[in-house]
Amino acid sequence: MSHYHLACTECHESHDADVYTLACRKCSAPLEVAYSDKDVGLSPLHDPDKALTLGEGNTPVIELPRIARSLGVGAIFAKLEYANPTGSFKDRGTAVMIGVMREHGVTELVEDSSGNAGASASAYCARAGITGHIFAPATAPAAKLAQIRVYGATLHAIPGPREAATEAAEAFQKEHGFPYASHNLSPYFIEGTKLFAIEAAMQLGESLPVHVVMPVGNGSLFIGSYKGFNELVQAEQLKAVPKLHAVQSMAAMGVVAAHRGEQWTPSGKKTIAGGISSVAPPRKNEMVRVLKNSGGSGVAVEDEDIVHWQRELAEQEGVYAEPTSAAAFAGIVALVQQGVLDSKSAVLVPITGSGLKDEPPAAL
Amino acid sequence: MSHYHLACTECHESHDADVYTLACRKCSAPLEVAYSDKDVGLSPLHDPDKALTLGEGNTPVIELPRIARSLGVGAIFAKLEYANPTGSFKDRGTAVMIGVMREHGVTELVEDSSGNAGASASAYCARAGITGHIFAPATAPAAKLAQIRVYGATLHAIPGPREAATEAAEAFQKEHGFPYASHNLSPYFIEGTKLFAIEAAMQLGESLPVHVVMPVGNGSLFIGSYKGFNELVQAEQLKAVPKLHAVQSMAAMGVVAAHRGEQWTPSGKKTIAGGISSVAPPRKNEMVRVLKNSGGSGVAVEDEDIVHWQRELAEQEGVYAEPTSAAAFAGIVALVQQGVLDSKSAVLVPITGSGLKDEPPAAL
Repeated sequence: MSHYHLACTECHESHDADVYTLACRKCSAPLEVAYSDKDVGLSPLHDPDKALTLGEGNTPVIELPRIARSLGVGAIFAKLEYANPTGSFKDRGTAVMIGVMREHGVTELVEDSSGNAGASASAYCARAGITGHIFAPATAPAAKLAQIRVYGATLHAIPGPREAATEAAEAFQKEHGFPYASHNLSPYFIEGTKLFAIEAAMQLGESLPVHVVMPVGNGSLFIGSYKGFNELVQAEQLKAVPKLHAVQSMAAMGVVAAHRGEQWTPSGKKTIAGGISSVAPPRKNEMVRVLKNSGGSGVAVEDEDIVHWQRELAEQEGVYAEPTSAAAFAGIVALVQQGVLDSKSAVLVPITGSGLKDEPPAAL
Repeated sequence: MSHYHLACTECHESHDADVYTLACRKCSAPLEVAYSDKDVGLSPLHDPDKALTLGEGNTPVIELPRIARSLGVGAIFAKLEYANPTGSFKDRGTAVMIGVMREHGVTELVEDSSGNAGASASAYCARAGITGHIFAPATAPAAKLAQIRVYGATLHAIPGPREAATEAAEAFQKEHGFPYASHNLSPYFIEGTKLFAIEAAMQLGESLPVHVVMPVGNGSLFIGSYKGFNELVQAEQLKAVPKLHAVQSMAAMGVVAAHRGEQWTPSGKKTIAGGISSVAPPRKNEMVRVLKNSGGSGVAVEDEDIVHWQRELAEQEGVYAEPTSAAAFAGIVALVQQGVLDSKSAVLVPITGSGLKDEPPAAL
């Protein structure tokens, strides 16, 4: 008997835990892990002492005083997720997701990604002794495709748009019967990302800001952080969940629009911030609920502001972030303009990934 | 009155601490920091609570069981220095060196580097609000030059061989009077790298291996580790300094040769491992003494073996190291052949830098 089941995020239907079920059998909504016990940082692994690890987590937190002054807020605490083994926060989710797969005896799996998640999956597959099949757009940056390949996973480079890689992965998965280790759909991935919030709360203690500002694409860090903070509140180790603010690109702002009750359809415009370029995130409803339940605000930003803050972060503080991470800082500008943040506000921001993995734009 | 002075590493002549003196005024040998008190992890900073930091240190240690089996040793503990903020162990040394400069009121400084050290210096200069002048060969990989530039330092790209960049830096330094923050000469740099050893001993406790195998170029991590372990032994927190083994490239094996009492002159051959390509390291005598005093062995390895182990590390364990780090594993093969290591030996290895920063060779 497992210590958890998979619960539908919409209708709450319960499903036995396995590595194949990615959607509710009743209403098709995404699933989440629901534990029998209430505790902080519970893991879906049956033997956490033998957890799959490449040294992810325990990332440093540093203050960014010059950037805080430039933005007109009181303090910014940056948690440096690029210190994770493959250079992004994805490693937290991948470690748990592929760790669960290994416990279930999986020897081959399928994933699709255009960037950080694919590299992360390839590395953890190598570590777990699992053959990974990573589907990515053939047009993805050469450096990202090279990183996927370097760990020994089989790279399936698929012509056409990003969605074509997902379709090819799903078809391959059905044909061969391997589990589909989708970082957007797997309920296990979020059990890793929730540790971001739990760690930040432990590291900062009484200094934990009331405001957390994050770039939001498919939302695994956003949803995971809400879950992590909530576990702390349930265990009475934290008074309240911080306000989780979501920053999206103008080119992919479905969550922000839905939270405002507005219609939004993609214009076909692209964003430089690959991590928040998703126009149809499967966990959109969950993200809107996180905004509502935490009292957060959603804002959308332009690429030119993302590039501006990427440069400022590097030059003013020595922090070289990927454009996706820089979007959070462009978002803080908007939140100050709206009066959500002011010169007394302290803010926690994840630096989600390394600038080294994203070719710098010509403007840099 | 300072809590330390600068001592000559050869004749032990004492010099007052400043940010300009890089060689003994009596015999021209390199200097080291000598503290008035004996303690573990002492810092040359006068106010360590206000230390310059980008979150360096506290890097994870993971075991590499498959690689240990492949190499025929009992266990390998890898300390992942690529989790440092700019992707290499240099950040430990840079943080202290530039932190001391900031305490002395330095606003502009000069450094020369072809790679990791230049990027690290540029990042910490940005963080410290210091204008950095980084001299590098114009022929260095574009990605490395781009990383130096991204933090806002002034990149001086110098035509000609690596040495030309050093000469240009020294000339510029003399002309303008800025301190020369050389990671090879500054005594402060080693006060940062020694923390690698102190952390490893704390993390591993009774499991700290008797053998440490490191790639050795200009030797700041090698010399620093000896100093760190020694501080622990002096404070009776560690029984004995581990055996520190040095791995060099066949193309730059002056330390290994000197330790064997052999003559060695550069053949002009290049190595793929940029971090250990130095043919005239200024701290060569110190490195030979570390080998002798710790009971370590020196070995030299071929590029093809470096590339082989870089690939094996990535594919077998999910660890993507720069070629310089992979050289340590090629060195373990030689140490097993020589009978220095066997199937009962546990070994600590630093993964000095990230493969992401070094373009993968065509063979990968």
